[in-house]
Amino acid sequence: MAKASSNAAASPAQGTHVHALMEHGGRIDSAQALYPHAPRPWLDLSTGINPCAWEPPANLAVDLRSLPSPAALATLEAVAARHFGTDPARVVALPGTEIGLRLLGGLGLPARARHVGPSYATHEAVFPARISIDSLTDEATHGGTILLANPNNPDGRLVSPDALRPVIDRLRENAGWLVVDEAFADTLPDAGLSSHLSAADPVILFRSFGKFFGLAGVRLGFMIAPPSIVARVRDRLGSWPISATALAIGTAAYADRDWIETTRAQLVTRAAALDAVLLRHGLTATGACPLFRLIATDDAKSLFERLNMAGILTRPFTYDPRWLRLGVPADATALARLDAALAHG
Amino acid sequence: MAKASSNAAASPAQGTHVHALMEHGGRIDSAQALYPHAPRPWLDLSTGINPCAWEPPANLAVDLRSLPSPAALATLEAVAARHFGTDPARVVALPGTEIGLRLLGGLGLPARARHVGPSYATHEAVFPARISIDSLTDEATHGGTILLANPNNPDGRLVSPDALRPVIDRLRENAGWLVVDEAFADTLPDAGLSSHLSAADPVILFRSFGKFFGLAGVRLGFMIAPPSIVARVRDRLGSWPISATALAIGTAAYADRDWIETTRAQLVTRAAALDAVLLRHGLTATGACPLFRLIATDDAKSLFERLNMAGILTRPFTYDPRWLRLGVPADATALARLDAALAHG
Repeated sequence: MAKASSNAAASPAQGTHVHALMEHGGRIDSAQALYPHAPRPWLDLSTGINPCAWEPPANLAVDLRSLPSPAALATLEAVAARHFGTDPARVVALPGTEIGLRLLGGLGLPARARHVGPSYATHEAVFPARISIDSLTDEATHGGTILLANPNNPDGRLVSPDALRPVIDRLRENAGWLVVDEAFADTLPDAGLSSHLSAADPVILFRSFGKFFGLAGVRLGFMIAPPSIVARVRDRLGSWPISATALAIGTAAYADRDWIETTRAQLVTRAAALDAVLLRHGLTATGACPLFRLIATDDAKSLFERLNMAGILTRPFTYDPRWLRLGVPADATALARLDAALAHG
Repeated sequence: MAKASSNAAASPAQGTHVHALMEHGGRIDSAQALYPHAPRPWLDLSTGINPCAWEPPANLAVDLRSLPSPAALATLEAVAARHFGTDPARVVALPGTEIGLRLLGGLGLPARARHVGPSYATHEAVFPARISIDSLTDEATHGGTILLANPNNPDGRLVSPDALRPVIDRLRENAGWLVVDEAFADTLPDAGLSSHLSAADPVILFRSFGKFFGLAGVRLGFMIAPPSIVARVRDRLGSWPISATALAIGTAAYADRDWIETTRAQLVTRAAALDAVLLRHGLTATGACPLFRLIATDDAKSLFERLNMAGILTRPFTYDPRWLRLGVPADATALARLDAALAHG
């Protein structure tokens, strides 16, 4: 099946797998089907999910039998709000931010909606019109709804709260709204906008639990918004939006400040180590998010294939064949495996 | 705090708790606040959730770290489809049917929508207009969208697939749609409509995982619908609608045919034992659903309070003060506790 490596779209099934790898990270099943002779287990560097996950304590009680209580949901939202630096009345838990983003169309936001791209595939699905980051402030003078990822994916671009302030002000003056997907904001102590907002700011934020805490299978996220928007989202989700597992794990993890501080520091160290390895192989990484790095090289396609043959899955992008995104490896062993694969040029 | 028992709405906080008990089952936290001297632990008969839950095997693998794979989601839907007796292409998994019901408004169904009531609070929230079960066939000649719970809650009324056939046919002739919430259909081998439908039938079904399997905290449900509706729901939910826990547990539980058959038989036995105890105390239970029983008595309010003081929570209803719903007790001990509390009249 070496053919699959050199001509990955040879059959319809293979075409499906190739598409899967270009569409989302984490598709190890498709990678294994396309590269059956690659060494296993695969090293998955195709996502920005923290491979050093928060560990639930052994005695964490998860009651799968009962409907989750409103009190437990309120506690989770209160603990999360403290972590975000905002008022619990502005926070609503979601079964993943993906579902929250797809609710945006029904919340009565201005119909002239666009996303700042390139960014997540979901952003394009929700608000197909695209603007560039360079036109953000100008676009704000036209009002409407603008969706921005910050830090952005895949390039890790970070816009500071100070730089977003004039955008928010212009949108407010023009009856517009800013929606910021802060899926990776936990990685940086000052990246989140929530503590910089006043009640009058027309801003909706999304926070993701699974990426920083490394538990994407839990399906937990949050919207931070003015209470009238929060009420509308609660109405869409009903009384039991979150699983008992997500309630228990989320409540304990957001309260674990030691782990959060330690992990933030470790992520910076691990990202720097990855940058050093990449640089040794002539690759310059960009971005401010210590969970993933983007490299741009004419060699991206063959590099992607070469790493696949070594059982290392990275993330290519249909819209820029020069790009390759790498999740930051968990430890020295994983980094050494990447280093060795890069050396076999 | 004995006052709370005799005058439960004495303070605003108590009023909130009373409202909680009338609105949904399972609010043991509110019951404890209102009746602090009741013996603990409480016996929760306020829901229709099976107290004898399916037990996940000790070696069940749940990968909380990764985003759930599309293959795992497809496997769950295929196993569930087999259980429902339908084609997997007609099945979409939901993070609870509650969220699915609240998506109905955005699926392009006919705007003239009503629910057959009284039934679930959520049905009224989604389609406020109410019709009675007696007018169902007549209403079908007017087309539009009709939402029906079958078996119904709280009265356990069951309409057979044969009896629903003319309703479906009239709706189809008049460009209408029937939506059936089969949350409790797993309890009865022949209650579900899915295996009785043809491709042309304008019918959407909801199935709930948590009630029959006794794992409401997992948050898992399904919509069964024509593929075009399924596609629209998938688009609303995005790529990862279901937690890793729900995927693993749901896939294993729906495949556990022995447990399903045994449990169906046991539920009938337990419901009959409850009926006998109620009858001994002059109370006649109604309904075809072996997870709960409805009694209608002038004495309902004082009976509800008396059971609360004995630490047994049942379910009253704002819209009919003569009604009290009792979940079927798990075992002889729980039934004996209810029996003793009923005896202290």
